Amino acid sequence: MGAGQTPYGDHPTLGIKEMFNAALGDAMQSVDRGVDPREIQAAYVGTLGSGGFQIGQPGALVAGYAGLPPIPVYHLENACASGGFALLAGVTAILSGLYDLVLVAGMEKMTDLSSAAAKYWLGVSGDTEFERLAGLTFAGLFALTAQRYMLDYGMPRETLSRVAVKNHRNGALNPKAHLRRAISLERALAGPPVAHPLNVFDCCPISDGAAVVLLASEERARSLTDAPVFLRGFGSGSDHLALHSRDSVTSLRASRKAAEDAYRMAGVGPGDVAFAEVHDCFTIAEIVAYEDLGFAQPGQGWRLIEEGATTAEGRLPVNLSGGLKAKGHPLGATGVGQAYEVFNQLRGEAQAPERQVRRGGLALTHNIGGIGGTAVVCIYEGGEGW
Amino acid sequence: MGAGQTPYGDHPTLGIKEMFNAALGDAMQSVDRGVDPREIQAAYVGTLGSGGFQIGQPGALVAGYAGLPPIPVYHLENACASGGFALLAGVTAILSGLYDLVLVAGMEKMTDLSSAAAKYWLGVSGDTEFERLAGLTFAGLFALTAQRYMLDYGMPRETLSRVAVKNHRNGALNPKAHLRRAISLERALAGPPVAHPLNVFDCCPISDGAAVVLLASEERARSLTDAPVFLRGFGSGSDHLALHSRDSVTSLRASRKAAEDAYRMAGVGPGDVAFAEVHDCFTIAEIVAYEDLGFAQPGQGWRLIEEGATTAEGRLPVNLSGGLKAKGHPLGATGVGQAYEVFNQLRGEAQAPERQVRRGGLALTHNIGGIGGTAVVCIYEGGEGW
Repeated sequence: MGAGQTPYGDHPTLGIKEMFNAALGDAMQSVDRGVDPREIQAAYVGTLGSGGFQIGQPGALVAGYAGLPPIPVYHLENACASGGFALLAGVTAILSGLYDLVLVAGMEKMTDLSSAAAKYWLGVSGDTEFERLAGLTFAGLFALTAQRYMLDYGMPRETLSRVAVKNHRNGALNPKAHLRRAISLERALAGPPVAHPLNVFDCCPISDGAAVVLLASEERARSLTDAPVFLRGFGSGSDHLALHSRDSVTSLRASRKAAEDAYRMAGVGPGDVAFAEVHDCFTIAEIVAYEDLGFAQPGQGWRLIEEGATTAEGRLPVNLSGGLKAKGHPLGATGVGQAYEVFNQLRGEAQAPERQVRRGGLALTHNIGGIGGTAVVCIYEGGEGW
Repeated sequence: MGAGQTPYGDHPTLGIKEMFNAALGDAMQSVDRGVDPREIQAAYVGTLGSGGFQIGQPGALVAGYAGLPPIPVYHLENACASGGFALLAGVTAILSGLYDLVLVAGMEKMTDLSSAAAKYWLGVSGDTEFERLAGLTFAGLFALTAQRYMLDYGMPRETLSRVAVKNHRNGALNPKAHLRRAISLERALAGPPVAHPLNVFDCCPISDGAAVVLLASEERARSLTDAPVFLRGFGSGSDHLALHSRDSVTSLRASRKAAEDAYRMAGVGPGDVAFAEVHDCFTIAEIVAYEDLGFAQPGQGWRLIEEGATTAEGRLPVNLSGGLKAKGHPLGATGVGQAYEVFNQLRGEAQAPERQVRRGGLALTHNIGGIGGTAVVCIYEGGEGW
């Protein structure tokens, strides 16, 4: 197994072909005993903007550019969970016995869009008929969630900003993060409003980027490295896209289903997770994720932030990479980039020593499509753990 | 296993949600001993136009509308092979042992686009940087193939029209075909030009439609029906999107790779195929497919048409459904609709007795993305064959 990633950010000279190539090269270099790209038997590529950003079958496009042989190339699209679903499709292929070495990639080119176009394309991840065409943006959807959550559970506005402060602090240490700077609570509170109660510091940036993970059967992985990382459990789920069809706007059914299946497959529970990367496209999303993943009871997730439980020094560090909030959120890349972060952490190869997690154990990643129309949860274990 | 399909055509009152529901209902009815939709464990949905036609994670959208539980819903996009790749993703999931009953769907809503928008969205299936933005349309790409083929192999223009005549004749008998009328050779030759040498009768129509297939493990399939259809082999491949990067413009590397892998897995050869559904988005594509699938030597595919070998009465009937040319081509639905046709033929349930294939044996389906950036080949066997 190997993993690579471009820095996330504003890359005016790079398109998806170049970013894919860079991430692929990075991933190949991470394979301790080396592997020839021509040994890759199939590819699973997640990206949202393919048709929208003017390219169909983008997986075949980037595979051809990278000089890969005429292998099967699948393109997965599930909004911001495109990368997560590409990963699961690749894992499923390994489990099927069809292949023993496959490539999973996620990528997105976002910064070459006008803000009007970006608003349009981001909006397609939600319900078009009842929400987007009525003027509801994604910040608006998550703002509704935040308002309801604050009303129901008494969370103060400041807690949201504390999520941003935490993730910016982590992102400042990550050389591949888009926003590599810490922010103060005062600054986070004073950001220009986007959709009340969310301000600009509650929202992830518009980023370019790509990430690649190589998946192998256990036997193949052990032949390629002495420090394999194993996927011990995974799950995914879905929900109505439109909020009005859901039972709750402060909890995501898709995330709960994904987590339940992942924990069951891994034979573990939320208490066994040592650290996690969760989908914090907006600050409120991280708090909701704590609850859907079982890290806290419903209505209690915000207290983990107040207690500092999920900081780098806390008992359950969350988003050591900086999260979507500070690392950046190149839509299709995100689910694969989370695996890249976990891979490096579990192997003790986080790019800066001060952000290396201090103990082994299980790592969890959580990736949602839109506002939870789909979701993916994976549980990883490093080294010789099983 | 079960299969369902909407009629293909112009459905001004139906969107993807309604068409998916109709095809799902049709598929559920085809399960001899009945199955509850809530027993479906995962869904794999192929559609091209999701982002482009303004909807992200469309699989979750239609699954939610149909009232399915919060199961994993994957959206696959590989241009016109989106349905074929959704099918393979579903098959892979069954092989992995994760599930024993999954749903595969393909769908596309095309007729509500202006012709300018349709031209744009169809164009994204090819290379954008070097072809589409330079003005090359899909009819233009296949016209280049046709010109080169005629030049290299001496095929007369009339042969192309004979493909159209054959497929319209088949489509006239298919109650679910878009163009249910036979055409004469004279009429096929006299169509208004589109891209020389192709005229309007060499091109498939713009269609709405959806198709659904239920895939099950062998054990589960036998519990649901006494007439299961088995997928005996499958393969897929990829290629550079842009023609200028390829070795040949009269043969598709992706199709050859897909066919090779499918024949190997099934342990059979082209001579064992009793009938086939091939991807005839343009008449020349069917002739190229004959060669890539091994039905004829390179440069000899057109002779099968001249000999009548692939008519309904011929030794190897091709596109008994009418093919993309007459049945219609709702992009994402096509690869799944081919499985629907084969399912009915192998079970002796073709909707009109005069188009029922006269013998059992193996059936092959062939689905390409764009002009062969990706391709899928499946080989099916009916009943008690293995």
